[in-house]
Amino acid sequence: MQYSDSILNTPSSFIRNILKVTDSADVISFAGGLPNPISFPIDALKASVNHAIDESGAKLFQYSTTQGYLPLRQYIAEKYNKKQPGLNYTADDVLITTGSQQALELISKVLLNKGDGVVIEEPGYLGAIQAFTLREPQFYGVTLENEGINVAELKTALKQPNVKMVYTVPNFQNPTGLTYTKERREAVYEAIKDEDVIFIEDDPYGELRFTGEHLPYIAAGKMTNSVVLGSFSKTVTPGMRLGYILTKNHELLNHIETAKQASDLHTNIFAQYILHDYLTNNAYEEHVEKIIALYKEQANAMLAAMEKYFPAHVSYTKPEGGMFIWVTMNNGANALEKFHEAMEQKVAFVPGNPFYTSKSDVNTMRLNYTNATPEMIEEGIKRLGQIL
Amino acid sequence: MQYSDSILNTPSSFIRNILKVTDSADVISFAGGLPNPISFPIDALKASVNHAIDESGAKLFQYSTTQGYLPLRQYIAEKYNKKQPGLNYTADDVLITTGSQQALELISKVLLNKGDGVVIEEPGYLGAIQAFTLREPQFYGVTLENEGINVAELKTALKQPNVKMVYTVPNFQNPTGLTYTKERREAVYEAIKDEDVIFIEDDPYGELRFTGEHLPYIAAGKMTNSVVLGSFSKTVTPGMRLGYILTKNHELLNHIETAKQASDLHTNIFAQYILHDYLTNNAYEEHVEKIIALYKEQANAMLAAMEKYFPAHVSYTKPEGGMFIWVTMNNGANALEKFHEAMEQKVAFVPGNPFYTSKSDVNTMRLNYTNATPEMIEEGIKRLGQIL
Repeated sequence: MQYSDSILNTPSSFIRNILKVTDSADVISFAGGLPNPISFPIDALKASVNHAIDESGAKLFQYSTTQGYLPLRQYIAEKYNKKQPGLNYTADDVLITTGSQQALELISKVLLNKGDGVVIEEPGYLGAIQAFTLREPQFYGVTLENEGINVAELKTALKQPNVKMVYTVPNFQNPTGLTYTKERREAVYEAIKDEDVIFIEDDPYGELRFTGEHLPYIAAGKMTNSVVLGSFSKTVTPGMRLGYILTKNHELLNHIETAKQASDLHTNIFAQYILHDYLTNNAYEEHVEKIIALYKEQANAMLAAMEKYFPAHVSYTKPEGGMFIWVTMNNGANALEKFHEAMEQKVAFVPGNPFYTSKSDVNTMRLNYTNATPEMIEEGIKRLGQIL
Repeated sequence: MQYSDSILNTPSSFIRNILKVTDSADVISFAGGLPNPISFPIDALKASVNHAIDESGAKLFQYSTTQGYLPLRQYIAEKYNKKQPGLNYTADDVLITTGSQQALELISKVLLNKGDGVVIEEPGYLGAIQAFTLREPQFYGVTLENEGINVAELKTALKQPNVKMVYTVPNFQNPTGLTYTKERREAVYEAIKDEDVIFIEDDPYGELRFTGEHLPYIAAGKMTNSVVLGSFSKTVTPGMRLGYILTKNHELLNHIETAKQASDLHTNIFAQYILHDYLTNNAYEEHVEKIIALYKEQANAMLAAMEKYFPAHVSYTKPEGGMFIWVTMNNGANALEKFHEAMEQKVAFVPGNPFYTSKSDVNTMRLNYTNATPEMIEEGIKRLGQIL
């Protein structure tokens, strides 16, 4: 059997594969990207299941609309309008997806022919690289600096006539933890505003800010071709696979709706009712504050340990939120080799390799801090410091 | 913005579009394809939610594996082995999908390059046509007769070197309600067994048999390239989007797993736990018997009304199970014109058009009987008889 070119070119997730070795009980793992279970409001969700079933009965169990449950779409639009006045979203601008991974896949499906151009941060989010790769695109990697994507490189990439979309994670990026500054956001907007491209701001971590304050989106509220992606995976539950697309480009959204019909008809409506019931009957903001307080403590523990145990040639990002720290070995050491050495010492991270679309020999690594106690974090970073 | 060729060539669902007009309260609609709400075991599912949360807690809410919840995969494998000895499925042969619509999309994604050949029943299942069309394939329609697909035409189609897969719905097919006879199944197997193609038996309705007895699958249990698709949408709930793929071809299944990672990471794990708890703690077979009894009554009411009110030039199928009857106007009347006339009389059906990959002028229509009382069915068919 000859399989399709698109699947033969798509790597299975490097992270999901290494999790098989990093998951043993005796390993201190910074490799995953799982939210801490504290972020699941289990009792409240259980109450919402019972409440929603009592209130709406069979509607939770029947086929439903492809765009998603209207009250949930309304809730999401209002939530964004409240966060950033001027966005002016309505329920018509929202489509519910089966996690935001599906949003990435649907957008690339409706935009990309084989060989079309995708501008992406380098390093960039692995799940996006994987979803886009299914369409066999040409990637234009643009260096992600401490302040955000490099604007000169972005402008050069945008000169390529085949570019259809620009993909960014402006807040607490995965894998680097970096956040675009206000100035860089404005410069990026100036660079893209007159281009015929879809500009994606993927923002699964935006609410998890533990330092500083919310920065305005780069293009949302300003241009029709802006797309914002969001998710409840980091603040309520990833297991229910509930993400969404926000855009004022309704031609794009209609195509995405058709693609979604063909892909899975609609997102689990039972889960959409439960989530909506939970959001409207609980103190969601207080719940998010609890997650933030925990992640701040964990991030600080990791940064303090790095300060203490890492040699001088190793630099690392200082995230203002989110779940990750990015480490660079400025002596040019090889991340894959260090990964194997670290596993011998029972400590795990993700080597930077799968986050690049153009390099294979890298000196970077991603560390997650949301699933270990401060004590385990200190011990793990201590071991890692000896290896580095 | 120039969208992708694949989305520009993919029609949005004709049925979902006409549902907007056929759904008013004063229309007797045979247009939908919704299971009757009697098929949702709401109280038992509610009990299972509470039970599963109490038992497994955070596991229902965290990220999970792409292949699906192991105990559910085991349950499914055993269920098939019990139904048809010799299938010998194990959990490793099962992958859980976000409804069986996703199974269609994933399989076409890993098999089809643009222009590859797909053999499909004519008329065939609309959702499959839609999913496959995203890959821009070449369709080879093979006439579906009362006994099953035409074997001579199938053999001719298989001579095309670009054919990668054959797609069938052998039990109570959508849209026709037809079931392949035992003899035709054997003849189809003889025709395909030495070909290098994936043979799909999509079987969402198989359990809903109200006349006759279970017939063995065409290729399952006999060839590695056999794929069986199943779903809990017709017997438990479609709202939770829970389907699955069964195959002994693990190279295919691995590629599908990678495609699923990139598409939505994994199927809602909360729903998988609930379904598994429901299936293992309730009398599922008795529940299915209740659905069958209702559908049998409704199908009989529709057939009796057709006998009474339809003119002699109209023929129709007599399903042994499932949800649909297929009507042919042998005077060559146009189904789309009749659809508009029927809507004026406040009765709705689906014109046959979207079920064909090669014709646009058709004299056939699909009628669903699972969502109306026998009295409404009689009244609707009476009105339709006058139009025909």
